[in-house]
Amino acid sequence: MTAAHRAGALSHTRRWDTTVVQAVSRPGVLDLGPGYLEPELLPVDLVRDAYATALAEFGAAALSYGADQGNEVLRVGLAAREAAASGYPCGPEHVLVTAGTSQALHLVGTAMAAPGDTVLVDRLSYDFGRRVLTDHGLRLREVRLDEGGMDPRALHDALTAERVAGRHVGFVLLNPTFHNPTGTLVGIDRRRELLAVAALHGVLVVEDDAYAELGLDGTDLPPSLVSLAEYDGVIRLGTFAKTIGPGLRLGWLVAHPAVVSGLARRGTFVSGGCVNHTTSLAIATLVRDGHYDQRLDWLRSCLRERRDALVNALRAGADDLAEFTTPGGGFFLWLRFPPGRTEDELLAAAASVGVNAAAGSRFGTAGGSAIRLAYSFTPPGGLAEAAARLAAAWRPAAGPGQRRHP
Amino acid sequence: MTAAHRAGALSHTRRWDTTVVQAVSRPGVLDLGPGYLEPELLPVDLVRDAYATALAEFGAAALSYGADQGNEVLRVGLAAREAAASGYPCGPEHVLVTAGTSQALHLVGTAMAAPGDTVLVDRLSYDFGRRVLTDHGLRLREVRLDEGGMDPRALHDALTAERVAGRHVGFVLLNPTFHNPTGTLVGIDRRRELLAVAALHGVLVVEDDAYAELGLDGTDLPPSLVSLAEYDGVIRLGTFAKTIGPGLRLGWLVAHPAVVSGLARRGTFVSGGCVNHTTSLAIATLVRDGHYDQRLDWLRSCLRERRDALVNALRAGADDLAEFTTPGGGFFLWLRFPPGRTEDELLAAAASVGVNAAAGSRFGTAGGSAIRLAYSFTPPGGLAEAAARLAAAWRPAAGPGQRRHP
Repeated sequence: MTAAHRAGALSHTRRWDTTVVQAVSRPGVLDLGPGYLEPELLPVDLVRDAYATALAEFGAAALSYGADQGNEVLRVGLAAREAAASGYPCGPEHVLVTAGTSQALHLVGTAMAAPGDTVLVDRLSYDFGRRVLTDHGLRLREVRLDEGGMDPRALHDALTAERVAGRHVGFVLLNPTFHNPTGTLVGIDRRRELLAVAALHGVLVVEDDAYAELGLDGTDLPPSLVSLAEYDGVIRLGTFAKTIGPGLRLGWLVAHPAVVSGLARRGTFVSGGCVNHTTSLAIATLVRDGHYDQRLDWLRSCLRERRDALVNALRAGADDLAEFTTPGGGFFLWLRFPPGRTEDELLAAAASVGVNAAAGSRFGTAGGSAIRLAYSFTPPGGLAEAAARLAAAWRPAAGPGQRRHP
Repeated sequence: MTAAHRAGALSHTRRWDTTVVQAVSRPGVLDLGPGYLEPELLPVDLVRDAYATALAEFGAAALSYGADQGNEVLRVGLAAREAAASGYPCGPEHVLVTAGTSQALHLVGTAMAAPGDTVLVDRLSYDFGRRVLTDHGLRLREVRLDEGGMDPRALHDALTAERVAGRHVGFVLLNPTFHNPTGTLVGIDRRRELLAVAALHGVLVVEDDAYAELGLDGTDLPPSLVSLAEYDGVIRLGTFAKTIGPGLRLGWLVAHPAVVSGLARRGTFVSGGCVNHTTSLAIATLVRDGHYDQRLDWLRSCLRERRDALVNALRAGADDLAEFTTPGGGFFLWLRFPPGRTEDELLAAAASVGVNAAAGSRFGTAGGSAIRLAYSFTPPGGLAEAAARLAAAWRPAAGPGQRRHP
């Protein structure tokens, strides 16, 4: 490593401004708003070395048009991980390299549905993902969500209603593992029930599994929907955005080989080849050489520490103010407030003590006031401090004079 | 530079196989088919250093969600180049970073047109670009093309016919600079005429300018359509695929700031940020630090040598067999054959002497037999050899015994 590289590694946040990144927190604010990894959790040196390794190993092949479906090194590596996680066979023919979940949602939204089609989504779901779909003229219909995930009975009723109304359903979009925004992990029985309902109606399921590798309690997770369905009628979306870095714009999807090859034959792939070829080779070397697993172990321990700091401080100070379940993984904790508290009021109180968070209604129909707290973007000490400030700010008896300012 | 890096630089073609790249030539074949840069022209070391520089300079900001419109370093650099080339002001607000022309075509095809809309294209035009559009349900209508580019009168007639038929036109797609497949450079008068027709009909023009930086004769090129139109009603697409490497999947578009910000507000950008953030910062450093200009000078000299080798050998051996114009830039030379020669026969004869080329009809309605020869993917000696073999194989009097086999 050169001196220049070392200097770079010491200045991770030097250009963290809106000429470069998407959004910047207000100065001095403890930001529990965005579903971002904080700068210190982004592996600058690892990624630099990955590009150098890939360019040395693959040479010019790393810069030419990539294989449409994605390079085989990455697809083999990802397939082996899928198989290990689900216990169901997976090969490179099941994997298509994508440019991240946003591009993959756009791809399935344009390839598997037509403008005017309905997409069924959890009553609460990833807001910008909704926008990718509605931009394309897709009509969203929210389905009831309970503590265990999407309600299969409500899904059945919604699909029946769409059929009766003569509307074509493009797909059902689920986010069963550490759901954004609620943090819910859908159990295996509920997974099977949802798949059975979709199969009964002959409707495709799109499984957004962005947080699937971020289980924080060391316990086995339920198999993916795509593996439970044995690749029949499910497309699973994975991403490196939450595990390495979103700027890479790299992800993958897992589906039946006929679906994968059909997508890879579309003009965008045939014209440009793999949608993120050079970067996909860099990350392929990390997966193949074990660096990705090492990174995941470290990242999970960092996120576990952050989650615990937030949960413990909320339990200590705000247990009576809002209901929440400790998330088993992912980035988010979901607070549900009793009637009488508006989200605007709660967020204003948070802002008055220098804490930013996300309104529950941003994600759909919350059915009451709710707030999403992200523990991914703030160090443990800041999360504990934020929870203490929120508890004070949200306590109904507290007058303005008792609020602590940062 | 480390020993490992040096070793990598010496083995540019080591993994040039279909597990990594999109297509591989048959062994021993002189391949004038694909519009690729040959491996030796792809700057492996330069790109490796660019990633290292960007990750050192921008740190974690290079791995987080990028500014939706693209980082400002690259947009400022590209805008300055646009202004210098056209003589018309251009600022970063006119530039949106894309994931290459394929993604950009998909973007304008989905954002600026709806399924069922018509897109007007040159009678001959980039085949896979057409497919990106038809995948989205757009209806292509070919417009007459002559030696000077799309015929403005024919464009007017086609737009009138679409209006009379009650069909909505999404846009006119042009490729005015070193056109694929014909190599045509549309002159300034024709550019103005085409813009006037589009403006008269109130129809958007999409200017695919993938080869615009590859003028080979040192002469000034006509201003871009987008600058001639003063950003009114034109979107220009640029790419690094033909100048650095297509595997990067990086390009940009230039348009009115309102169009740029409208596109950047779409779900795909709002959700994922810049569509190729990390790579866009790497290439931004090359543009800013002058390495891109140095690279272009070198690449133009390499392509000039290749074009001249092909043209000289064709003039020497095949001048009476097919008509062609020496292209002033880009990758392609277009051969038009007299009646009585079929493309299948011509390509079979080429294959019999170990030369691959592209059938003219692949790109639309050639109006007679034509062959596209790419001089980008074969070294000068190979191009001269290919031209000599083609001349022999295509000479009508030649019997099979006179054909030279490789």
